[in-house]
Order: sequence, then C-alpha cells, then structure tokens
Amino acid sequence: MDITKNIEILKIKGEDITKKKDILIREYPFTIFVNEKEIVTLLCTPKSLKNLAIGFLFSEGFIEDTSNILNIRLDEEKGLIYVDINNSNILQEKLRGKRTITSGCGKGTIFYNVIDSFKSRKIKTPLDIKINEIKELMKEFNHKSELFLQTGGVHSVALCNKNNILFFEEDIGRHNALDKIIGHSILENINLKDKIILTSGRISSEILIKVAKSNISTIISRSAPTSLAVEIANELNMTLMGFARGERMNVYSNFNIFN
Amino acid sequence: MDITKNIEILKIKGEDITKKKDILIREYPFTIFVNEKEIVTLLCTPKSLKNLAIGFLFSEGFIEDTSNILNIRLDEEKGLIYVDINNSNILQEKLRGKRTITSGCGKGTIFYNVIDSFKSRKIKTPLDIKINEIKELMKEFNHKSELFLQTGGVHSVALCNKNNILFFEEDIGRHNALDKIIGHSILENINLKDKIILTSGRISSEILIKVAKSNISTIISRSAPTSLAVEIANELNMTLMGFARGERMNVYSNFNIFN
Repeated sequence: MDITKNIEILKIKGEDITKKKDILIREYPFTIFVNEKEIVTLLCTPKSLKNLAIGFLFSEGFIEDTSNILNIRLDEEKGLIYVDINNSNILQEKLRGKRTITSGCGKGTIFYNVIDSFKSRKIKTPLDIKINEIKELMKEFNHKSELFLQTGGVHSVALCNKNNILFFEEDIGRHNALDKIIGHSILENINLKDKIILTSGRISSEILIKVAKSNISTIISRSAPTSLAVEIANELNMTLMGFARGERMNVYSNFNIFN
Repeated sequence: MDITKNIEILKIKGEDITKKKDILIREYPFTIFVNEKEIVTLLCTPKSLKNLAIGFLFSEGFIEDTSNILNIRLDEEKGLIYVDINNSNILQEKLRGKRTITSGCGKGTIFYNVIDSFKSRKIKTPLDIKINEIKELMKEFNHKSELFLQTGGVHSVALCNKNNILFFEEDIGRHNALDKIIGHSILENINLKDKIILTSGRISSEILIKVAKSNISTIISRSAPTSLAVEIANELNMTLMGFARGERMNVYSNFNIFN
C-alpha cells in the first residue's frame, strides 16, 4: 500500500498563488485483534504492519517473545490484523483493566463513527480570512513560542480572531496544548465559531476532529497535515492550511477563499 | 510550578567535551478525577492545568459547556484535579466503554508502578560506544529519512549495533515507529541487549520506558528529551543522548562513558 498520497494544493509564496501537486503522508487506521477480541485502532503509516502489531502487543504486555504468538493474519486492504496468542490469561487481565478512556492518541475504534456523527457539523460558510492576516498572526505566534526556543521540547497552540491571538498555550503534547486552548475557551464561554486555531504541530485526523468538535472552521499549522486530516477537512468544509512560514503557506481545502 | 528544569549535561561539539547547565522541559503526570472516579493520567507541561482538564473532558465528551461543571479542585503539588460534573449518565457510559488499552500516549495510571517494576532491570554495564561511532550512525540515519524529506510528516526510528543500522522504520507516530522496530526484533529473535535506538523524535518518559522494557541500554535522538525521561534514564542507568546533529550532541546520563 502507498504510504503517501498525491493531492492538489494551493501553494502561496508571497503574492504568487498557484495550484500544485503535493505529496502527503498517508494516515491509516489499523485495528488489532487478539484471539478475536478487538484491542485497539492505531493511526499509522501503512508499512511494516506486522512489526507494528507485534511491537505494540509487546510494549503493552500481551506477549513476551515469539513463543507466545500462535498465528498472525493481516488484511491490509481492510486495515485489520488478527494475532492469536497462547497466554489468554493476560488477555483477560488486560480487558479487565481500568484504563478505559482514550486521550486521543491514535486509538479508539469509535473513531469512524465519530466522523459520521460530525457530518451534521459541516461548516456552512468558511471564515473569510486574507493571506496577509494569516502572515501577521503566524508572525505573532512564532514570537510567542519562547519555551520551544529554550528547550526544543514543546508544541504551541493559539486561538485567534482575524486580527489577534486571544490565548496561547504550550505543552509537550500536541493534544494537550489544543485541549488547554479548548478548556480555556469553555471556561470563559468564548464563542468559537468565528475563531482560528494556529498550531506548531502536525495536523493528524485526531487533531482535526478535536477542532471540528469545538465548531472552529479554520486550522493553520507551521507543519504538515496527514492525508486523512485533509480528507476530513474536505468532508466538513473546514479550512486547513500547513507549512505556514514567513511568506509561504499551503492551502489543503477550501481553495475558493483565496482565489 | 516551574515548567522547565535545570540540569547538568555533557555537551559535545567536535572534539570538545564540557559539562554545562541545560534547560529541560518538565514532564508532569497529571491525573483527572471526575465525580471522584479516576479517569486518566496525562503527561503534560504543568501550566494551565484547569484549562487542560476541562478541554480534555470536553474533547472526550464528558462535558458540553460550563453548565455541566459543578466544581473544580486542583492539587498542583500532587498532580491531581477533581472535577465534579452534573451529567453522571455520561460518566457511567464512558466507564463502560470498551477502549480499554492505552497505546502509550500519556495516559495510564499504572505508569508509576511501571517504573517501580523496572528497577530490577537496571542496566549493569552501559554500552561502551564512541562519539565517532555515534556520528557515523546518525549520518546514516539522516540519509535514510527520505519519507520525512518528501512529506515533512513522519518520525524515524532505527535499531543499530555500534557500526551499522540493522532496521529502520518510519511512522506518523513516534510510538508506532518504535513499536515497529521492537516488533521486527521480536519476530526475528534479535537479542537487544547490545543494541542502540536512534530516533528523530522527542524522548518522553513513555518512549524511554518502551526502550527499557526491551532491555536496550542506549537511546539517541535528534531532538530533546523531557525531564522525566532523563530522571528515569538515571534511575535505570540507561544512556540517553539528544540533539545529535552533525558534530554536536548532548549527553543526559552516564557521562562517565565519554569522560
């Protein structure tokens, strides 16, 4: 299976706006079953999938070595792998475990139902924002990312309107930084419909879905989006932009705003 | 609470090796309780913690807005927050959910017990590796990271001995890339005790613990480690290096190997 996907983007460089082919990294939902029980759905790059499943099961304590593995059957087309193991006691113990809630890091088979349930949230009118406004916001955003400059270790997320950054949060986790912004908005009863998210981190499908849940129509990153994030953005009519750095930025959905 | 931590590192720049003060980003375990039930432990930056808890509970569907929140009590010293909500039906539903297993992205209250259970795994003799060997390995590692260069979207992890890269894996997730390497090693019955992990991504405590579980003594990153990762590396006598780029690298534990 291809691990990248070719799509058409709008490439902005100074005053120049052109449609170009671009390569995105594919984000692939991959569900692991152990002795026919569904264990987890990882969001991953579709390559070395048996290695991923076995490494995951080792890291999570399901197996200790190859002697525990009875059979492996991979269905790459459907994104499923069935692993049979001989230590079924461990499986029982894991399934009784109390760590019941995802923090949204690539697991959760409810994932696709979630997308379905969002279709009603399709954005009616994309936010009308100008390229120069984005450049100014990203300039301010970069100035604020001081903790990253000191330590090289954190992600930044900001909530903005077209003219200003309203809140700015940092965290070692991309999800945590975004959750801090969302929590801040909830605690202050901010209406998010006309707001914009800026982020330093990659836009995976889970980040996009978190933004969609908050009714925010526009997300702009300094880094790359995944293929699945772009697909969902198109589905929900959200505006997704990436590699926003200085005079350059890529538009992955809602091209018409800038044309 | 400080969001960074000052430690002493060994800074390598060409032939020059000196002890220097360095600033690390703090990694802080933060446990959220809803109506007295323990929900999740996030590994985060200790700042804006109420925002984080409320944003997490919104993203995970526990609350819809402030009207659902009855009370918030933060114990920053102990890393605990107690949120009381008025929609207890949702809490019941969430606790019955079937997504029972972490993929190791900053949750799991078993976390600290895990560290305790590792103390028996303390590395007896750190791997004796030379700076020039590391430079050569990192050079090869960077050459291999082609998918990143194309898409800007993936992390790379490699398993090496002192002289060569044995396996190389890429994924949109840092954890997935490492699990692919571990799974590959298990499927080929590779003895990991004298091996080294190279990674493009940040070294958080969870990445370090995954490496420790595999009995690998040495991990080297192109990026930064967190404070908690360095603490655990010291605890387990593992060798942790970061910012390995060209002629430069930082040593965060086991200084004596290079002195």
